Amino acid sequence: MRVAILGGDGYLGWPTAMHLSAAGHEVSIIDNFTRRNMHTERGTESLTPILSMQERVDVWQELTGNVIQAHVADINDYGHLKSLFESIRPEGIVHYGEIPSAPYSMIDRDHAAFVQQNNVIGTLNVLWAMREAVPEAHLVKLGTMGEYGTPNIDIEEGYIEIEHKGRKDTMLFPKQPGSFYHLTKVHDSNNMHFACRMWGLRATDLNQGVVYGMHTDQTEMDDRLLTRFDYDELFGTALNRFAVQAVLGYPLTVYGLGHQTRGYLNIRDTMQCIELALNNPAARGEMRIYNQFTETFSVAELAALVQEAAAHLGYEVEVDHLENPRIEAAEHYFNPVHTKLIELGLQPRYLSETLVESMIEGVAKYRDRIKVDAIAPKTKWA
Amino acid sequence: MRVAILGGDGYLGWPTAMHLSAAGHEVSIIDNFTRRNMHTERGTESLTPILSMQERVDVWQELTGNVIQAHVADINDYGHLKSLFESIRPEGIVHYGEIPSAPYSMIDRDHAAFVQQNNVIGTLNVLWAMREAVPEAHLVKLGTMGEYGTPNIDIEEGYIEIEHKGRKDTMLFPKQPGSFYHLTKVHDSNNMHFACRMWGLRATDLNQGVVYGMHTDQTEMDDRLLTRFDYDELFGTALNRFAVQAVLGYPLTVYGLGHQTRGYLNIRDTMQCIELALNNPAARGEMRIYNQFTETFSVAELAALVQEAAAHLGYEVEVDHLENPRIEAAEHYFNPVHTKLIELGLQPRYLSETLVESMIEGVAKYRDRIKVDAIAPKTKWA
Repeated sequence: MRVAILGGDGYLGWPTAMHLSAAGHEVSIIDNFTRRNMHTERGTESLTPILSMQERVDVWQELTGNVIQAHVADINDYGHLKSLFESIRPEGIVHYGEIPSAPYSMIDRDHAAFVQQNNVIGTLNVLWAMREAVPEAHLVKLGTMGEYGTPNIDIEEGYIEIEHKGRKDTMLFPKQPGSFYHLTKVHDSNNMHFACRMWGLRATDLNQGVVYGMHTDQTEMDDRLLTRFDYDELFGTALNRFAVQAVLGYPLTVYGLGHQTRGYLNIRDTMQCIELALNNPAARGEMRIYNQFTETFSVAELAALVQEAAAHLGYEVEVDHLENPRIEAAEHYFNPVHTKLIELGLQPRYLSETLVESMIEGVAKYRDRIKVDAIAPKTKWA
Repeated sequence: MRVAILGGDGYLGWPTAMHLSAAGHEVSIIDNFTRRNMHTERGTESLTPILSMQERVDVWQELTGNVIQAHVADINDYGHLKSLFESIRPEGIVHYGEIPSAPYSMIDRDHAAFVQQNNVIGTLNVLWAMREAVPEAHLVKLGTMGEYGTPNIDIEEGYIEIEHKGRKDTMLFPKQPGSFYHLTKVHDSNNMHFACRMWGLRATDLNQGVVYGMHTDQTEMDDRLLTRFDYDELFGTALNRFAVQAVLGYPLTVYGLGHQTRGYLNIRDTMQCIELALNNPAARGEMRIYNQFTETFSVAELAALVQEAAAHLGYEVEVDHLENPRIEAAEHYFNPVHTKLIELGLQPRYLSETLVESMIEGVAKYRDRIKVDAIAPKTKWA
């Protein structure tokens, strides 16, 4: 299958490109280095030393003989995006090409507006370019479990049948996102749903949980194929950040009580999910929605797990409860359904102490690259 | 009360400015003439001959002694908007400042992106400027009944209590909008709801039906105080456009069978609704949502009503069923609740044959200004 990966230079985009290339697909990646530039803006960088996009695809070709086409383009440049779709003629489009940071979107008006403009208009461009250039293609779009918030009812996979005053309809599950970034994913979902209904596009919206882990089968082949690993305030996610803190002996920073519960998955499972979504395309006019995570943890549970695994490796680390910089429910119900990807064949790799230990060991290799100042949260929600 | 009206030069904005000024409020209007410029772009104009914004406020002062402050500013210019909020210090903000045309948003990629950018980022700016300059102010934001689409269950006023698998929550009513324009109102509602939850802003989201009519008590005072009356493909709404077609003897253009049913209200009732919303501000952190219309009609019913009223006035006119340029349900359930504004005191002026006759007579005064070419729909949804 010809696959275009938007954001193919990123944490998940690059391993996805290699994974799909290894599986025999013709892969093109499109990226404008937004994430690299944002790190430069903030004076931070990936824990892992990563090569440039062009070097990566060259190494990949050298090692496997497989070609990944690399294009530098901003999906907010509609003309460029459309001409790339016309030349690549993708059958599948994997869309990671958005700014994924909740704190970044909450810094101030300019950052909020930039994230909303970049993500919403970027995705709108993808939909129009599909309509005009490749209307048969299947869009696999990364959303987030954070679109749902923490309602007091079970979270279904995208749609819910509502019975009301004696009548019934199946509707988009109501959303309650927690940042201007998370809101962009809700706006995208609504725009995509419309484009499927109106133009008969095909799309799968993947509401992904928090991804952890440093390696996939392909990144392990050669250090030159490493993907980025962020641990900073803006782009570092809970478990990855804790592993870095453990190696430093820096207290694990839990926001508030740490009872916030979220869905998590291993980066290797992300690879499986994307491939399953691509291999099971939506019909024309259909928007499928899957909840893409394998298990739920509270932040306090994760911290305890990391603390214990770290202790076994000889790192003594404390758990520090910071005042929560975010506004979110301290205690809440959280029971999201996540069966559709399992039904398609997902074989989850559950989080274990062994796995956390290997993550910590992976991080320890790059101990000298850690910038301590980058870790503490500086952005407040209000 | 100090009130800022965003889009205060428009069809509803200008009569609202006069209505609130007449009621004793200190009114400032902010507009960047987007609608006037779009008409210039398309070679169309208002049926009614309207004065410039500055002339209007001058005439208003001459006739009533009341001052309306007029500011030329684009709400997409955040610095300008914020400085205006700092100097005006509004207690109430009425937000009409968006591009309200579904067909305009469907012309092509550039128009879709412009409408989404203009409306969503404009409203995001309003929220940030409120937070930074006037956090106690009450935002009265115009949404549309078109956010809901036509679900198979009764449409509640913004929120719905959902009972699911033995648990309950009250959530935002799921939306299914019918154009990129309508989508902007959904995106706005989600952004506003977030800003209320996070920052304790106050907002009332008015999901307005289709407004008809030419006059309010104030526009009738003097021809120089007329508001615009659009009948063209892009900005003309069903009943207003039918009145123009009747006067011309041009067939009433019903899209498809005309069984599409929507909520409607008289422009005079819009004045009441805005005043009621302002006089009953939401609490800090609350987003109220009202469905703002007084009765529902199918397009075919409206056409029949206009045909009959026109006949009484000596205009013979046919009803023409065009192929529907929009993608929307030809037959559907539609039963939206609309009790909250009534409970606050709204006294509806229902549509009657007499009222349609007076609309047709009003239109007939400007018969010579009608541009026939502007009426037929040219924009298709797919």
